[in-house]
Amino acid sequence: MNMYEIITKAKHAQRLTDEEICWLVSGYVDGTIPDYQVSAWLMAVNLNPLSDEETLCLTMAMKDSGGTVDLSGVDNVTVDKHSTGGVGDKTSIIIGPIAAACGVSVPKMSGKGLGHTGGTIDKLESIPGCSTHAEFSEFIRYVNNTGFSIVSQSGNLVPADKKLYALRDATATVDSIPLICSSIMSKKLAMGADCILLDVKTGSGAFMKTAEDAEKLASLMVRTGKNAGKKCMAVITDMDIPLGRSVGNTLEVIEAVEVLKGNVKGKLYDLCIELAADMLVMAGKGTKDECIKLSEDAVSSGKALDVFMRSIVQQGGDVSFVSDYTRLGEAKTRYAVVSSSDGYISGMDSEEIGLVSLALGAGRKTKESAIDYTAGVVLEKEYGDYVRKGDVLFTLYTSSECDMAEIAGKAAAAVTLSDTEPPERSCVIKTVE
Amino acid sequence: MNMYEIITKAKHAQRLTDEEICWLVSGYVDGTIPDYQVSAWLMAVNLNPLSDEETLCLTMAMKDSGGTVDLSGVDNVTVDKHSTGGVGDKTSIIIGPIAAACGVSVPKMSGKGLGHTGGTIDKLESIPGCSTHAEFSEFIRYVNNTGFSIVSQSGNLVPADKKLYALRDATATVDSIPLICSSIMSKKLAMGADCILLDVKTGSGAFMKTAEDAEKLASLMVRTGKNAGKKCMAVITDMDIPLGRSVGNTLEVIEAVEVLKGNVKGKLYDLCIELAADMLVMAGKGTKDECIKLSEDAVSSGKALDVFMRSIVQQGGDVSFVSDYTRLGEAKTRYAVVSSSDGYISGMDSEEIGLVSLALGAGRKTKESAIDYTAGVVLEKEYGDYVRKGDVLFTLYTSSECDMAEIAGKAAAAVTLSDTEPPERSCVIKTVE
Repeated sequence: MNMYEIITKAKHAQRLTDEEICWLVSGYVDGTIPDYQVSAWLMAVNLNPLSDEETLCLTMAMKDSGGTVDLSGVDNVTVDKHSTGGVGDKTSIIIGPIAAACGVSVPKMSGKGLGHTGGTIDKLESIPGCSTHAEFSEFIRYVNNTGFSIVSQSGNLVPADKKLYALRDATATVDSIPLICSSIMSKKLAMGADCILLDVKTGSGAFMKTAEDAEKLASLMVRTGKNAGKKCMAVITDMDIPLGRSVGNTLEVIEAVEVLKGNVKGKLYDLCIELAADMLVMAGKGTKDECIKLSEDAVSSGKALDVFMRSIVQQGGDVSFVSDYTRLGEAKTRYAVVSSSDGYISGMDSEEIGLVSLALGAGRKTKESAIDYTAGVVLEKEYGDYVRKGDVLFTLYTSSECDMAEIAGKAAAAVTLSDTEPPERSCVIKTVE
Repeated sequence: MNMYEIITKAKHAQRLTDEEICWLVSGYVDGTIPDYQVSAWLMAVNLNPLSDEETLCLTMAMKDSGGTVDLSGVDNVTVDKHSTGGVGDKTSIIIGPIAAACGVSVPKMSGKGLGHTGGTIDKLESIPGCSTHAEFSEFIRYVNNTGFSIVSQSGNLVPADKKLYALRDATATVDSIPLICSSIMSKKLAMGADCILLDVKTGSGAFMKTAEDAEKLASLMVRTGKNAGKKCMAVITDMDIPLGRSVGNTLEVIEAVEVLKGNVKGKLYDLCIELAADMLVMAGKGTKDECIKLSEDAVSSGKALDVFMRSIVQQGGDVSFVSDYTRLGEAKTRYAVVSSSDGYISGMDSEEIGLVSLALGAGRKTKESAIDYTAGVVLEKEYGDYVRKGDVLFTLYTSSECDMAEIAGKAAAAVTLSDTEPPERSCVIKTVE
């Protein structure tokens, strides 16, 4: 086997054998195949996409490139959840506790976010004292204690993805659906949960800009997960508008707690109930309707909030903020963005809101950037609301020195107003099983 | 400007600006753009071919990446010639002397060949004493003395091609017509001759397997040459069967001398007259018919042979071999390959004959391989000949230890016999101006 032949095959859209794919992955990880050959291959498969069989094989080879997580110490059915990332997406820290309150275990490892706002890890670490660094045995103990824990990815998990992703990122070869699938699913499979729920975002604030691409990715990931012997399903959700009313780390933690307290209804709540119910269905807890009821009860009874708080405490966090949000710290500056005209909000570009949030300091511009946990955007009005000139559209929060007027202009420009009431939009576009 | 955007554009088949192409070439040569980004770009442009404008710009940027040859010291019109490489192609050492005998100057620099047989440099160096290493001033003196000199490429000529070609060779991105064009033409333009004749081979023994691809390449190279202000034309020639009757270094030198002596007629002679005449036409020596007459006269008068001999002598060579070919050395082993049946030779796979020649030691398997100058194949029968069982098809020559029976089997298998006389085939398929 040699890399030249493998590149040639990919260039001519010929299928690689399983042996060739495994050889490529292990050779790249051990350094015997150089970057420049792998990047030529990556471009070839960007333009001549890998088949389902190749994608499955690549995913498994990547999964097997390093250590895998042994969840046998968790004495319960385990459910993992992955979101392809969006603006204002705090669902993980809501649905994990809901599902755990309903009797399944949700062990989750995450990486640090690079983008508009931090990732789930950053949101948790914005809680005073809360640490996401844990020994593996500790992590298993957390999960067995409360049914829910999210920690930072550690160990030598899927080194092939680390290396391939860095190369894809430098060579404009990220946006290949089979490569995205192998990257996500190799990590999910290495994590070892019995069931995997995938939240595939689509729209302006998502990686998949069209519902068609989102469905392709969702479908490929579900097939790959099932082929690997897992229960797996995907939900395609709307990311044309931000999810919920808060974007930013502590702002999103607060909103999540509000949902868990039962104080927030609407799209974010509905989506969380739907996703939690899907986790429960996969875990065999009942029909979809039954699981929706279970999830709703977990919120209304306060059990989900209780799981959340106990989980934060066991990871060292101070949960006094739950009754006094100022304990999370407060941004030095607040700035109200007002509407310059009247109309119904018929669009709110989530990518732009994400960039506003990043400009305020809520995300990382580079891997090394420090995050301002208190920074972010609160949407005072939502899609479909009628606003009058002078009404506050957003409140911007930051503790950094920013050109607030410029940022406010960008935020205002993200909103589209119309004379007529826009159609309802559903957060869940489609379920792929 | 950044490489990520350039790769992205190429991936989406969007055109690069001249500035982007120049930036890419100079950044790659000076090492600021890494191999792995360039190889991703190379694969993208293999699959989404560069436009004519991009190819011209790339060619010029590559040409300008290092030194160029200053031929102003040659007090005559200069004509360069390039062949895309074939089996048994010894035309350069025949037509250079013919054209020079007719009053044009042929300054040529070549690289060492990597393939079935050595390149032109190796053929010349198979002549005892003949050196192709010369100071530049010496080279100009040679050309002014005899009108013809071929030396090894030296100096920092087109470093971009050296680096890009090595990367293409390692990443299966060689066979892109625009990239081949830029590689060849950047070197031809750096060489600085007034006129450029391109011999584009097509068929089994050539890089361009189909006449269609050969014509695309020829046409693109001619357009690029003309755009760069040169007189330029291309001749597409048949390489489905070997050129002439000899393949190997000293064997081809002998055949070339036989042509120059006027002892050999037929396809090889006709092609040489045609190519030499094209050189003369470009140099303004007359109409095509007039230039064919001039070329024929240069051979029949012995003037072309005289130029050849004086050129070899000025490069240190011993020309006594011209009257006694054994002075070139003789292979230790000769082996006759006989026909196992009767029929007309309707095919003689030149790629296979090339591989036989390589197996006998006539070419380089790697850059470091030593060549057996005396090794090679003599075709005792040609395309169209009628052979009987037991007739000798080939004589194999080598001074190395080879499995002659196996090699002879391969040689015999290269021949196709048929009951009916095959159609005539012309060596020149098309001229592209």
